[in-house]
Amino acid sequence: MELLQFKIDDIIKTALNEDINYIDVTTDYLIDDSAVSTARYVAKDDGVLCGINIAMRVFELLDKNVQTQVLIHDGEKVKKGDIIARITGSTKALLKGERTALNLVQHLSGIATATNKCVELVKGTKASVADTRKTLPGLRDLQKYAVTVGGGKNHRYNLSDCAMLKDTHLDAYGSMTGAVNALREKMGHTVKIEVEVSDLEQLKEALSLGVEIIMLDNMSCEDMKKAVEITAGRAKLEASGNVTEKTITAIAQTGVDIISLGALTHSVKAFDISMKMEK
Amino acid sequence: MELLQFKIDDIIKTALNEDINYIDVTTDYLIDDSAVSTARYVAKDDGVLCGINIAMRVFELLDKNVQTQVLIHDGEKVKKGDIIARITGSTKALLKGERTALNLVQHLSGIATATNKCVELVKGTKASVADTRKTLPGLRDLQKYAVTVGGGKNHRYNLSDCAMLKDTHLDAYGSMTGAVNALREKMGHTVKIEVEVSDLEQLKEALSLGVEIIMLDNMSCEDMKKAVEITAGRAKLEASGNVTEKTITAIAQTGVDIISLGALTHSVKAFDISMKMEK
Amino acid sequence: MELLQFKIDDIIKTALNEDINYIDVTTDYLIDDSAVSTARYVAKDDGVLCGINIAMRVFELLDKNVQTQVLIHDGEKVKKGDIIARITGSTKALLKGERTALNLVQHLSGIATATNKCVELVKGTKASVADTRKTLPGLRDLQKYAVTVGGGKNHRYNLSDCAMLKDTHLDAYGSMTGAVNALREKMGHTVKIEVEVSDLEQLKEALSLGVEIIMLDNMSCEDMKKAVEITAGRAKLEASGNVTEKTITAIAQTGVDIISLGALTHSVKAFDISMKMEK
Amino acid sequence: MELLQFKIDDIIKTALNEDINYIDVTTDYLIDDSAVSTARYVAKDDGVLCGINIAMRVFELLDKNVQTQVLIHDGEKVKKGDIIARITGSTKALLKGERTALNLVQHLSGIATATNKCVELVKGTKASVADTRKTLPGLRDLQKYAVTVGGGKNHRYNLSDCAMLKDTHLDAYGSMTGAVNALREKMGHTVKIEVEVSDLEQLKEALSLGVEIIMLDNMSCEDMKKAVEITAGRAKLEASGNVTEKTITAIAQTGVDIISLGALTHSVKAFDISMKMEK
Amino acid sequence: MELLQFKIDDIIKTALNEDINYIDVTTDYLIDDSAVSTARYVAKDDGVLCGINIAMRVFELLDKNVQTQVLIHDGEKVKKGDIIARITGSTKALLKGERTALNLVQHLSGIATATNKCVELVKGTKASVADTRKTLPGLRDLQKYAVTVGGGKNHRYNLSDCAMLKDTHLDAYGSMTGAVNALREKMGHTVKIEVEVSDLEQLKEALSLGVEIIMLDNMSCEDMKKAVEITAGRAKLEASGNVTEKTITAIAQTGVDIISLGALTHSVKAFDISMKMEK
Amino acid sequence: MELLQFKIDDIIKTALNEDINYIDVTTDYLIDDSAVSTARYVAKDDGVLCGINIAMRVFELLDKNVQTQVLIHDGEKVKKGDIIARITGSTKALLKGERTALNLVQHLSGIATATNKCVELVKGTKASVADTRKTLPGLRDLQKYAVTVGGGKNHRYNLSDCAMLKDTHLDAYGSMTGAVNALREKMGHTVKIEVEVSDLEQLKEALSLGVEIIMLDNMSCEDMKKAVEITAGRAKLEASGNVTEKTITAIAQTGVDIISLGALTHSVKAFDISMKMEK
Repeated sequence: MELLQFKIDDIIKTALNEDINYIDVTTDYLIDDSAVSTARYVAKDDGVLCGINIAMRVFELLDKNVQTQVLIHDGEKVKKGDIIARITGSTKALLKGERTALNLVQHLSGIATATNKCVELVKGTKASVADTRKTLPGLRDLQKYAVTVGGGKNHRYNLSDCAMLKDTHLDAYGSMTGAVNALREKMGHTVKIEVEVSDLEQLKEALSLGVEIIMLDNMSCEDMKKAVEITAGRAKLEASGNVTEKTITAIAQTGVDIISLGALTHSVKAFDISMKMEK
Repeated sequence: MELLQFKIDDIIKTALNEDINYIDVTTDYLIDDSAVSTARYVAKDDGVLCGINIAMRVFELLDKNVQTQVLIHDGEKVKKGDIIARITGSTKALLKGERTALNLVQHLSGIATATNKCVELVKGTKASVADTRKTLPGLRDLQKYAVTVGGGKNHRYNLSDCAMLKDTHLDAYGSMTGAVNALREKMGHTVKIEVEVSDLEQLKEALSLGVEIIMLDNMSCEDMKKAVEITAGRAKLEASGNVTEKTITAIAQTGVDIISLGALTHSVKAFDISMKMEK
Repeated sequence: MELLQFKIDDIIKTALNEDINYIDVTTDYLIDDSAVSTARYVAKDDGVLCGINIAMRVFELLDKNVQTQVLIHDGEKVKKGDIIARITGSTKALLKGERTALNLVQHLSGIATATNKCVELVKGTKASVADTRKTLPGLRDLQKYAVTVGGGKNHRYNLSDCAMLKDTHLDAYGSMTGAVNALREKMGHTVKIEVEVSDLEQLKEALSLGVEIIMLDNMSCEDMKKAVEITAGRAKLEASGNVTEKTITAIAQTGVDIISLGALTHSVKAFDISMKMEK
Repeated sequence: MELLQFKIDDIIKTALNEDINYIDVTTDYLIDDSAVSTARYVAKDDGVLCGINIAMRVFELLDKNVQTQVLIHDGEKVKKGDIIARITGSTKALLKGERTALNLVQHLSGIATATNKCVELVKGTKASVADTRKTLPGLRDLQKYAVTVGGGKNHRYNLSDCAMLKDTHLDAYGSMTGAVNALREKMGHTVKIEVEVSDLEQLKEALSLGVEIIMLDNMSCEDMKKAVEITAGRAKLEASGNVTEKTITAIAQTGVDIISLGALTHSVKAFDISMKMEK
Repeated sequence: MELLQFKIDDIIKTALNEDINYIDVTTDYLIDDSAVSTARYVAKDDGVLCGINIAMRVFELLDKNVQTQVLIHDGEKVKKGDIIARITGSTKALLKGERTALNLVQHLSGIATATNKCVELVKGTKASVADTRKTLPGLRDLQKYAVTVGGGKNHRYNLSDCAMLKDTHLDAYGSMTGAVNALREKMGHTVKIEVEVSDLEQLKEALSLGVEIIMLDNMSCEDMKKAVEITAGRAKLEASGNVTEKTITAIAQTGVDIISLGALTHSVKAFDISMKMEK
Repeated sequence: MELLQFKIDDIIKTALNEDINYIDVTTDYLIDDSAVSTARYVAKDDGVLCGINIAMRVFELLDKNVQTQVLIHDGEKVKKGDIIARITGSTKALLKGERTALNLVQHLSGIATATNKCVELVKGTKASVADTRKTLPGLRDLQKYAVTVGGGKNHRYNLSDCAMLKDTHLDAYGSMTGAVNALREKMGHTVKIEVEVSDLEQLKEALSLGVEIIMLDNMSCEDMKKAVEITAGRAKLEASGNVTEKTITAIAQTGVDIISLGALTHSVKAFDISMKMEK
């Protein structure tokens, strides 16, 4: 899986622009243009790495002659103390890019690590772990990529690529049936319909309409188990709402197909990585 | 304090573009252009609100006739269940903007709330709580703003507006004295110098050079107390490194002037707010 | 259905920038700032109108005080001689925006008109008419919108929102089964799979895999009829390849669900509309 | 003739962004990063090629190691079945860029081919074939370039680089003489004046004013012949209005200098080219 | 004459972004959101005003409720002490926009004033004063506009809208005749040809080719007089090269049609205007 | 000192876009794609060079195979007739980039030269020469860089990185003391405060508040001398207001620390450099 390089470059340039509005007053006045250094990236915690190429790219955009060597790749597990990468190039470029590069790789590795923890917690069940649209402005590409790197799956990317009926939409049509039919009448044939239901009655109506995905919104595990039985494979069932590391295993054991968590992208704990100059 | 409106608008447009790549396939096909609704923003937790005007702006950019009424403002405390704002306008605009608006206000309120918690924990000491450059790409403006809304203070905004000497820079000059002198020789007169020190010997050298700010890097509270005594007001002392809600009060009690935390902006827990349609 | 206004504005600004690089040397030097005129838009052919609000918006961006009155709306049929809209405002703005506005509305009405002709030609069958990704750079939003205005449906918007297996992809996996399984293993649950088949054997394999959509690539009508029978509603069938106004009715009568045409967007005949100053 | 590479790159990036909003869900999940393929571009019709370097550039922007070999160049005639180019590189890049590259080269070759047909039809006369400002938003550079590749000439590029008096402008001054004089008083000395005339009386007035170009608007061939005689080389005569492949030869034979056609750029038929993977 | 408002807005936003990277640390922390002030613009020198609407627009972009009153308009003469405009609005907006607005109006009024001085110096002759392409990056629109406001005329706007043959180009063709013919063969009919000549022999060759404009490069006034006689109105003559306020009158008296000066835009002296708060 | 390359590239692209809107009609139609030339940059005056790498970069962006050889570097003195650089590459690229490259290097060398003249004039005193925020839109980075290349120092880069109290701000608080205290209460610890004073009483108040910098606004040399005595090193003193080459030495001799001049960036005289083709 591969994001468009020029889109990543634009994000990096935005970040560098924020951090180096004019010059790096410390580095530009103190360090010789000809000084060359080697820095290493070291993990300071255990987790799943994500964004290391993006971090390396920061330095390439600052100094096209920089040499980077990635030792641990996106999706691989790292342990505290592991050397992740080495960069050799202009000392000025290394110092100027340090913060921007770390901000990126720490955020993405944080997402991949948290996702992976959830993936481990549902192992042995049929449930997959999915993200949501609860992402940060300008970072959806990167955040959704990090979820897949952690072993999760992507829910719809945006409002254009899957129809999702919530109560508000249903209200507008008087009935779920009306809404589903109206959608099928107008939307393209490549789009799936997901309906959000809050009880088993609604579930049955959704099933009778043949929708592809049904979201079980904040249901109890007991109800979800019943939902799985009733559905019997006729639609994908997605559990959603206040899923945490504590509850996710039990939810997965109900037999649902997908468990989606906003927290994977809206409440990210940065994964600690440091950059150290080698002597 | 006020960010440039057109910069905020650009961030919102970026976010809307991510979320509505082409159309909102559900809303655009189901909801009448003429339908009008009122939605309310409700707090689902206790904390400090931040970004409510930005959230409202999302809807204005989608529907210039939308009416917004902000009941609780940035910087004010909210309790679970509080109604924060009401928006009346095109149902389509409300549904399309919902996620984008929430993503923004939940992230910023998360920062303001966490900052405020730290501010409360250092109350009664002379310490102020400050952010860092550990921000997310494209969001520095908003994140730094949210820190001030929570009662914190902004550390340098970027590499251009304050010189910060770390060991790498010092190595390049053989001595702290050499580096500080070199900087003073070249940089503008409006820029302060901060020097990172890891022990009391370095602190004394920094003090002898008259630098404006000294960062005590990962020092024990005991050493920080001694540092405060030695410094005796001759420089601002900043405590940095692995500050948490558990340790911050003790650190503040050492008498340092500033305590900076990367976690305020790099490990944000979204603050829960929901948008509900009124019947 | 509604595109994001600020995205449309960006397209209009790009077009105005192309046409007014510096000044309108004729208008700026000859027409008084205070001169006010009324212009009318008149259809010079029969067809389906599309983009009239976008055309009006061109003038609003040039003169915020312009008054526009749209008499015939997007999706409505126009006959030669019909007055479509009236614009009153600064004569300078009317003259400067004329070409840019017409370029947009003529292109989009051309698409809507051609689409509508196809829709008429398949009336009475179950087939719907769909577009493709054969669009012009920067104009996909507008072109896909025009297809829907003409009564057509949108195929996938881009490479992210529907999986489409062509022979090249199949080759990479040795078998269709391998490829479909690999995709289902990795992709999100909101994405459909479409498989391109060129004969009835392949069709059967695709059906056995339960894929949602099957594209019948350049098949004879006879084969397509058989495909419809074999499929018996188990998947959506899409006819594709060299569909023209001459062949589309016969294709539709085979019973396929969707007929897609690249020509709707890649070979557009501008629909003739003129702008006339009223005396 | 050469367009600015970075402007072309921007158009390509816009197109790729439209087509790969996040990932290519099929290719990214199925094709190995290390897979390498060779594809060929094959003409599926007879015509004049245009935009082949732009198509190749699409792949370079996706994979900097791609190798391209152009066998037939812009402006050369192609026959159905001709191999136009070969591209060897990452299979993923080839599959991801295919549609975007073809959309560009097919559109531009369509313009070049149609232009060339007109050029052939006026051969032996003194008339040249010219484009207009009836171009598509964001594509004027490319479209005007394609006209020259087809053997046509460019009319004014935009409203800044040639003054063109239409009846509206003339009305504003009471007389053609007034308007021409006013323009000459104010505009720069590098700008030509073109006047649109609808009868021979107006032609004579324009000639008496010494304007450089006179547009004969929708005149009969008979009148155009008279116009040529009257003018006797004192100004360039441009025939305009509903020129088609059927009428263009007769128009050219009247002796006019330029024949301009909006259809060259506003009603483009894509030229059929396909990309095939080599085994 | 009127530049596109959204292009001016983009320049202003660029300037505001440069000046308010994050916040206005002084104003944002000291001035109440509700504070309202009135400021006046006062001329501190004599000259020709240019850019006053652009300066006012700066404040409108910062505070949409600001009220501006322009007392002296672009192109009008101002005397030291004249009140040019009054702005009433948020004190914060006035303080934040002050520098950006002044930077713009002072630069443009500097150009208009210097241009006007040259125009006055050639009064009574047939010469007009023209600018060149020696402009500053990103400011060509504004600078060329300011020249016209000062009474000057615009030379070609860019390399696309007039052909200009210099010695290098001529060398490439062996002869001026070859180059002129080649150009006429290929370029559009709306483009003029200007040839640069350095002696009277070259002038005669250019005249024999019927080119529209001839640039007399660094010729003595004596030679220019002869050039005027020889030309006898058959082409526009442009004097160029080291024209200063001291030499321009003599040059104009030779009878040339245009005198172009790079200094109008490449060596601008800011025109002094101040903004004062009214009590 | 080093600006971000991609920001410089953006400025160059903006400039090239202005100058080559579509094609270079002369060069593109006359010069062979395969023609190669060598051009030299020659100083036509004495001064300090600045921006030569930026000028070279213009050609690299037009032709990635161009070879550049810089003989005199930024910050070095040049004498009339000195060869500054040589460029070998496509003749077309050399001709197309000539004006854009010269516009940049001439402007920046003009700033560096003027700055250096001031620096020479204050030699032997303790005063340094500083710029202001009186820069041109979009050019602040480059202009501030040129000031440092000429030996000057940068004043604050923008409104975010240093607090500056002017009378308006003071009025808002009733007293300087109030304003300074309010600022210290709220702003970050890395920001200095500068106070503008117009007499010695104000100076004393500012000193009593311990502000870091005091601007002596339009004071007589006599008063400035007294200010220096009174201050006795307790704050940096900046002389400002109508500083010229005639008065700067006397001002410097008063003992002030910094002398700031808006003219360095708002009233720049282009430094004459020419580009000549070598035979």
